[in-house]
Amino acid sequence: MTSIQRIIEKLIEPARKFESSTDVLVKGSADVEVEGIVIAFMLTQEVLEKAISIRANLIITHEGPFYSHQNWKEAYAKDPICLAKLQLIEDANINIFRFHDYFHRYDPDGIMVGLIRKLEWEKYTKEYQSTAATLAVPKKSVTEIANYVKLKLGIPFVRVVGDPSMECNRIGLLAGYRGGGELVIPLFQDQNLDLVIAGEGPEWESPEYVRDAIHQGKKKALILIGHASSEEPGMEYLKALMEADFPHIPVYYIKGKPLFHVL
Amino acid sequence: MTSIQRIIEKLIEPARKFESSTDVLVKGSADVEVEGIVIAFMLTQEVLEKAISIRANLIITHEGPFYSHQNWKEAYAKDPICLAKLQLIEDANINIFRFHDYFHRYDPDGIMVGLIRKLEWEKYTKEYQSTAATLAVPKKSVTEIANYVKLKLGIPFVRVVGDPSMECNRIGLLAGYRGGGELVIPLFQDQNLDLVIAGEGPEWESPEYVRDAIHQGKKKALILIGHASSEEPGMEYLKALMEADFPHIPVYYIKGKPLFHVL
Repeated sequence: MTSIQRIIEKLIEPARKFESSTDVLVKGSADVEVEGIVIAFMLTQEVLEKAISIRANLIITHEGPFYSHQNWKEAYAKDPICLAKLQLIEDANINIFRFHDYFHRYDPDGIMVGLIRKLEWEKYTKEYQSTAATLAVPKKSVTEIANYVKLKLGIPFVRVVGDPSMECNRIGLLAGYRGGGELVIPLFQDQNLDLVIAGEGPEWESPEYVRDAIHQGKKKALILIGHASSEEPGMEYLKALMEADFPHIPVYYIKGKPLFHVL
Repeated sequence: MTSIQRIIEKLIEPARKFESSTDVLVKGSADVEVEGIVIAFMLTQEVLEKAISIRANLIITHEGPFYSHQNWKEAYAKDPICLAKLQLIEDANINIFRFHDYFHRYDPDGIMVGLIRKLEWEKYTKEYQSTAATLAVPKKSVTEIANYVKLKLGIPFVRVVGDPSMECNRIGLLAGYRGGGELVIPLFQDQNLDLVIAGEGPEWESPEYVRDAIHQGKKKALILIGHASSEEPGMEYLKALMEADFPHIPVYYIKGKPLFHVL
């Protein structure tokens, strides 16, 4: 038999040593035998119901179930939507492991490896840093790159700062909530980038920096692809890792539908 | 003569008592005579150049000049785009006052008053809270409300979670970076809202909450209009306040172009 403890040890093994406050067994017992694994970027209500219906008894989720980087906030303890979800979690014969920090601490970052594989950009990757990757791609316009990324990741739209016709060669890639100025601004400069593609980040930081750079006559652009879209491929990649390690356990990856539409 | 000190005292006067670490004279001297005022949501390179060209010697800006909630980060001290902007600030005969926290601490929040005026929704406003306002509008679909907000605020797109045809009556409105779960989730519940309209916030918080609520069969929706778009009307409203208080000083409001486009 394979216990949840065994799965967690295997998940954590490749990560740089680190004590995570988020990557915990949100629900369940480490000694339970794993009969099926569901992997998702986020434990949405839909993912939870699907996992229950296919009788997978372990969910591995990148983001927590209760809409905060912490896995639970007392502030929402009276909220009926949170309570209904919590009740379903409590009632179901299910175990939930949050796998966030450790996967980001693989070398290279497991979420980034999955994203680059999904984009089929392995051959263009120059350097993996702890919070970003840099790539040199054949020259393409911002629009061409945006359309390629949308197609590969299955996303309906991206938000762009900059000239859509600008030619790009050197790209910085940052997944999740790493689109803020403290990571993006030094990366642009240190790596002499034309374009940064990031998940999300505060709008008055990197986007305004790129706007100013353009006003100063610099050729820079920024594409925000969305947090979920930037990290889902990493969790899809985790499915392949788990299947290789535990071939006798069925592993399912559930992709969310696009979160936003534009009007 | 009217000194910068006099202007700052007037700006701060209506705010609840509070010591702000951000609302400082970023550049300049309090005893300088004010010859012209430029007001902007963000001191972009473009705003800075325009203020210099029209010889306004005081800029009042809501967000800081260097892409962080703090007004300056040592991390960007080697960045040539930041340095070029800093050089222009140093060389110009210009004074810069950051006006953020104090304006939010007007009663009601000055930024919110400006936003509601711009939307012409004064008559629908039920309650001003310290971080939000609640409104009861005549029933309209999410799409109709989104189109109205886009038209009134002059924004090219909004991001939406939820059914575009859902009818909305009770709306919560939050400006700036107040779209996070800690503010939006209790507001939805306590005020029994159909729709929240917010500037920006982390994508895995309020947007995922609304997604789950909908999956549970609740009628909820979220419209993110962008940080700048949600706070610019407040700074435009400040122009009217300043003109009433200091009729002898020319006051200019400079609106930024839309930050993002979608591809």
